[in-house]
Amino acid sequence: MSLDRFLAETKTLVDGALDRWLPPAGVKLHDAMRYAVFAGGKRLRPAIARAACRAVGGTDEQVLPVACALEMLHTYSLIHDDLPAIDDDDLRRGKPTCHRKFDEATAILAGDALQTHAFLILAEKTPRREAVPTLVLDLARAAGTDGMVGGEIADIEAEGQAPDLATVESIHARKTGALLRASAVMGGGAGGGSPAQLRALSAYGQALGVAFQIVDDILDETETAEVLGKSPGKDRKDRKMTYPAAAGIEASRQRARELKDTAVAALEGAVDAPILVKVAELIVTRSK
Amino acid sequence: MSLDRFLAETKTLVDGALDRWLPPAGVKLHDAMRYAVFAGGKRLRPAIARAACRAVGGTDEQVLPVACALEMLHTYSLIHDDLPAIDDDDLRRGKPTCHRKFDEATAILAGDALQTHAFLILAEKTPRREAVPTLVLDLARAAGTDGMVGGEIADIEAEGQAPDLATVESIHARKTGALLRASAVMGGGAGGGSPAQLRALSAYGQALGVAFQIVDDILDETETAEVLGKSPGKDRKDRKMTYPAAAGIEASRQRARELKDTAVAALEGAVDAPILVKVAELIVTRSK
Repeated sequence: MSLDRFLAETKTLVDGALDRWLPPAGVKLHDAMRYAVFAGGKRLRPAIARAACRAVGGTDEQVLPVACALEMLHTYSLIHDDLPAIDDDDLRRGKPTCHRKFDEATAILAGDALQTHAFLILAEKTPRREAVPTLVLDLARAAGTDGMVGGEIADIEAEGQAPDLATVESIHARKTGALLRASAVMGGGAGGGSPAQLRALSAYGQALGVAFQIVDDILDETETAEVLGKSPGKDRKDRKMTYPAAAGIEASRQRARELKDTAVAALEGAVDAPILVKVAELIVTRSK
Repeated sequence: MSLDRFLAETKTLVDGALDRWLPPAGVKLHDAMRYAVFAGGKRLRPAIARAACRAVGGTDEQVLPVACALEMLHTYSLIHDDLPAIDDDDLRRGKPTCHRKFDEATAILAGDALQTHAFLILAEKTPRREAVPTLVLDLARAAGTDGMVGGEIADIEAEGQAPDLATVESIHARKTGALLRASAVMGGGAGGGSPAQLRALSAYGQALGVAFQIVDDILDETETAEVLGKSPGKDRKDRKMTYPAAAGIEASRQRARELKDTAVAALEGAVDAPILVKVAELIVTRSK
């Protein structure tokens, strides 16, 4: 199957489930949650989870709660990152950010509620009940102080400091990498993957997550607002510690390709997952 | 055992576990989480969970992760409620609020991380693994759009509206009641309570949660900042829809006592829990 078709299928499947499983529209809080979730994301984390589940012999039904939980968790992090007190962004995916469309209190609470709802859906909808404790733990570790939120605060604290590669990679691994890694691992876990398969998926996701954020850094320097759907050049303006700031654009592109190769190599001998290979290629060649 | 001794024991036990299970001090994000968690709470939710667990024959070891998760979840909600965009409070439990002590970005992320950590601890530390899916679901339902966050946004939206009792009780049941109810139910669930026992604990927690918030409303009108450790009269200033605003102080006291009686009656024949009876009495007679 082509990657385009797999991504389109995943988006249809996941958007349908998100629509069923999010609280109903017509209440301001719910509307804000739905606005942010349906603002046009690529559903990359659900696609990785679905491909990983398939790679270990699992079904779409098994992975759907994981896919939705990952997307809710990711969306909550975008809403909070965009807040005036953090990155203060007005535009996300070409549309007003949640606090600009609604208001700041609603955006804070919509983000909070999306995080909660991610855990709710995992606990309520996962067909393999025995997988729930590990899935909750995987998601919480990826989202928490050793993962996404820890990376976010390290990113804020590094603003204006002299960039160095070890620090950048450590921030990227937590801020973006942890949830991409969890996407692969939780997809495999939901499908009943073996410990060796989950280790391979973990190594794949770990390398790919850092590559993804390096490419994000490069695009912020080289692309236009029209292509990105958000304001470019913002990292430089905010004096963010990015990979290009530490090593230049060409070395950044090289490092992203290396990490992609590492990710793909990690799968060899453990899972046969052509879609995951294609996802890795997409991540380093994308233009938005 | 006296209630005072039970509460003191619970505080020692829970504070010890929180100290072990929270991420280590020395990192700004962790320091902010610890600052808020150790700002001097009464550990009421852990005490209810522990008493409920004991009432169904469970052990302290079984209930400790639930008790800590409840306190982390509660603390996250306080940090976010105090933010400038929501209630804009400078003082909490007699100390600067998290965003005043640190900064707004740190407070948002510390709240986020405490919510995540609550689910992490439930999934990682609960001794009865088979209880984890239901415990995660109980906590997520109490915290989410049908519970705490839903009540919080309804509370904001009701500001300045003509108060009516049905709306006030509905807001109170979600904003404060849902987590107190979950404290009783999850404590019983962690200890392996029967469905009938959990139903009784649920009814107890439901009534007690609303009583708790009515008493909070009364204290905001009648007590001083020294006693409360926060600015009194704020509900009236913010034109919050409170029980006293809807019915007056005396009718509010009467309603709190009625709800306490309902809570205690719900336990009869299902669990023998003298501590839960005493907690209910404390909640309606407390002065802070």
